[in-house]
Amino acid sequence: MALIVQKFGGSSVKDADHVRNVARIITETYRKGHNVVVVLSAQGDTTDDLIAKAQEINPKASRREMDMLLATGEQISIALCAMAIEHMGYQAVSLTGWQAGMLTNSAYSSARIKRINTERIQRELDKKKIVLVAGFQGINKYDDITTLGRGGSDTSAVALAAALHADLCQIYTDVDGVYTSDPRTVKGARKLDEITFDEMLELASQGAQVLHNRSVEMAKRYNVNMEVLSSITGNPGTKVKEVVKKVEKTHVSGVAKDKNVSRLALIGLSDQPGIAFKIFSMLAKYDINVDIILQSIGRDASKDISFTVARSEGRHAKELLEENQEAIGFSTIELNEEVAKVSIVGAGMANNAGVACKMFEALFSAGININMISTSEIKVSVLVEERDADRAVQVVHDRFFDEFGSNS
Amino acid sequence: MALIVQKFGGSSVKDADHVRNVARIITETYRKGHNVVVVLSAQGDTTDDLIAKAQEINPKASRREMDMLLATGEQISIALCAMAIEHMGYQAVSLTGWQAGMLTNSAYSSARIKRINTERIQRELDKKKIVLVAGFQGINKYDDITTLGRGGSDTSAVALAAALHADLCQIYTDVDGVYTSDPRTVKGARKLDEITFDEMLELASQGAQVLHNRSVEMAKRYNVNMEVLSSITGNPGTKVKEVVKKVEKTHVSGVAKDKNVSRLALIGLSDQPGIAFKIFSMLAKYDINVDIILQSIGRDASKDISFTVARSEGRHAKELLEENQEAIGFSTIELNEEVAKVSIVGAGMANNAGVACKMFEALFSAGININMISTSEIKVSVLVEERDADRAVQVVHDRFFDEFGSNS
Repeated sequence: MALIVQKFGGSSVKDADHVRNVARIITETYRKGHNVVVVLSAQGDTTDDLIAKAQEINPKASRREMDMLLATGEQISIALCAMAIEHMGYQAVSLTGWQAGMLTNSAYSSARIKRINTERIQRELDKKKIVLVAGFQGINKYDDITTLGRGGSDTSAVALAAALHADLCQIYTDVDGVYTSDPRTVKGARKLDEITFDEMLELASQGAQVLHNRSVEMAKRYNVNMEVLSSITGNPGTKVKEVVKKVEKTHVSGVAKDKNVSRLALIGLSDQPGIAFKIFSMLAKYDINVDIILQSIGRDASKDISFTVARSEGRHAKELLEENQEAIGFSTIELNEEVAKVSIVGAGMANNAGVACKMFEALFSAGININMISTSEIKVSVLVEERDADRAVQVVHDRFFDEFGSNS
Repeated sequence: MALIVQKFGGSSVKDADHVRNVARIITETYRKGHNVVVVLSAQGDTTDDLIAKAQEINPKASRREMDMLLATGEQISIALCAMAIEHMGYQAVSLTGWQAGMLTNSAYSSARIKRINTERIQRELDKKKIVLVAGFQGINKYDDITTLGRGGSDTSAVALAAALHADLCQIYTDVDGVYTSDPRTVKGARKLDEITFDEMLELASQGAQVLHNRSVEMAKRYNVNMEVLSSITGNPGTKVKEVVKKVEKTHVSGVAKDKNVSRLALIGLSDQPGIAFKIFSMLAKYDINVDIILQSIGRDASKDISFTVARSEGRHAKELLEENQEAIGFSTIELNEEVAKVSIVGAGMANNAGVACKMFEALFSAGININMISTSEIKVSVLVEERDADRAVQVVHDRFFDEFGSNS
């Protein structure tokens, strides 16, 4: 008998049929003798609908009231799912964030879980009930409802799994698991049986939208065994763990693409110490995250600095730097919004210098220009023109995952 | 400076425009220097929509989960209204039932308020905030969400007014106040400036759907000054109080009609003691409420008993009695679903024997047959054929409220 936490996203509970399907998965797990704690997101478009309602009334609504409003979405899901489970003849109990003891800080709309008081959940499990917990929400020390922001329900699930010392945390979604690349666009993409937390983190932040980084980081920290799987097919999914046995000696686990990138280039900076610090501390002050940074020597003892930011922040960053042109001291600034980042991720990569080389070669053979390069222990990212991105992913993927290729 | 509790029903907050209108009424009260606590119902059809969702998944959903589901409706209303108030530049804070300290018993879907812990509300009022409380809901001692059932938000408002020792409890609705009869169907119906709790109770239970009896009973018990008024017109409404000064010496405050009635007749009962008890205790066991009862001597030392029940319970009551025909001992049972109850209500009635007489005379003059009669301290009800009901109300109303009539 194990304790299993299962999380189902909004598309998995979007209507009565889907709720019934989820109830079936839950009760099947329960029937095998396991204790089951379920975390649910709001149904389908509920959250968007609620946001639209709020926008109509007050486009600048306070975050506290937004959280009060949005928390109802998950509450509806858990109640309906509990009813579906009851209908199948099992005992269920739904719990809101506060009932489930999810204590957070007070950062409305992006709260962090501080502690989970698991007493109530434990008591319900002891009564052999299936426990349904509203994801994405908690309460702060003032007894006010908070929400966890993006990826909140995944985070709720992992946090509960950690607090309850669950044997497994299953994240049900509308895909079969984690793939070597996006199966909708990359030919030959295949499902991974296992992946490490670190690889998952890099894949997620590189644009493979399966699990939210925040939940993976938490799973890594508390060593929660995760599994990503489909609520529709019932196929085995992808296990996410600290260490995985690589059956094949693949160094690369996946190829990811991220189009949410803009590149800024500051040209003709005077070559003085502290300039980079000036630029990036200014951006940090305005919460603009910088990803890849490239510094190069320009002509006449001047230098250039290029870097990437999320596309939504490109214009803001440009304006900010322009306003401070004199203080920083540069001659021109360029914003390129038609770029994309392509990355390979793999835990075995650091010990194998040939991996990056193989990636560059594949891109070169396809005639694709590399703008910038960034590497870490377990990934290599390159910036390419956006129009080349899909082809870049495909040729890199072919190079590493083609069965007749040389990487196996 | 007074403390005013304002309650707005579902139709008053059904969309963004209506929410803004409600926010305007609230902030106008606040601007006059009053402390304002607001109780809101769920928007428009929200509750019905949620019930339909539940029905689709489980027609026999547990009441606990129904309450979990339905409580979201009021939570949405308070958050949206708080946003509208913020948008007007005032400080508001929304509180769910549990946050507002509404402690109830555990009768899910028809919980009764046991106590209100007003600390949180008081704290927010001290900060000069407008406090918005989700009506219809509370929590029980297990920290589970409960709902109060029919008329729940009115009850929440009155209970809060009592607990906070509010100076006034304003119930905003879509009518201007309490009328001498339904102004949509009765010519010459006019708004009452004042009415006593007892009269209001009789009018409500006789089918004048303005205030729910439960809230009026509570207001009477705790002597909460109530006012019923329109959220649209802004006209002065009707004050509901313990004692009212009757400017005109009207003995009758209103004429009400109730079509939600069925009449059952048991014919040929043996004339033994205890038979009535047998019948009505059986119905009580199945929660079937009996209203008017008439017992008459039949032929051959047998007797007949007729009584009225809510129309939705007529068939059930008939079946129940038929199943027990032998034990009770009657020859035939008749169910008449085409009847209606017409009542006159007025605190001055008991001391004026002429009032009932005048009613009967009006009906007689109009050729309307009276089936059954029931009287109390402050009301006279008659059962008539349903097809005569509207006309009956009109002629009775004309008789008492026609300016040229004899009652003033």
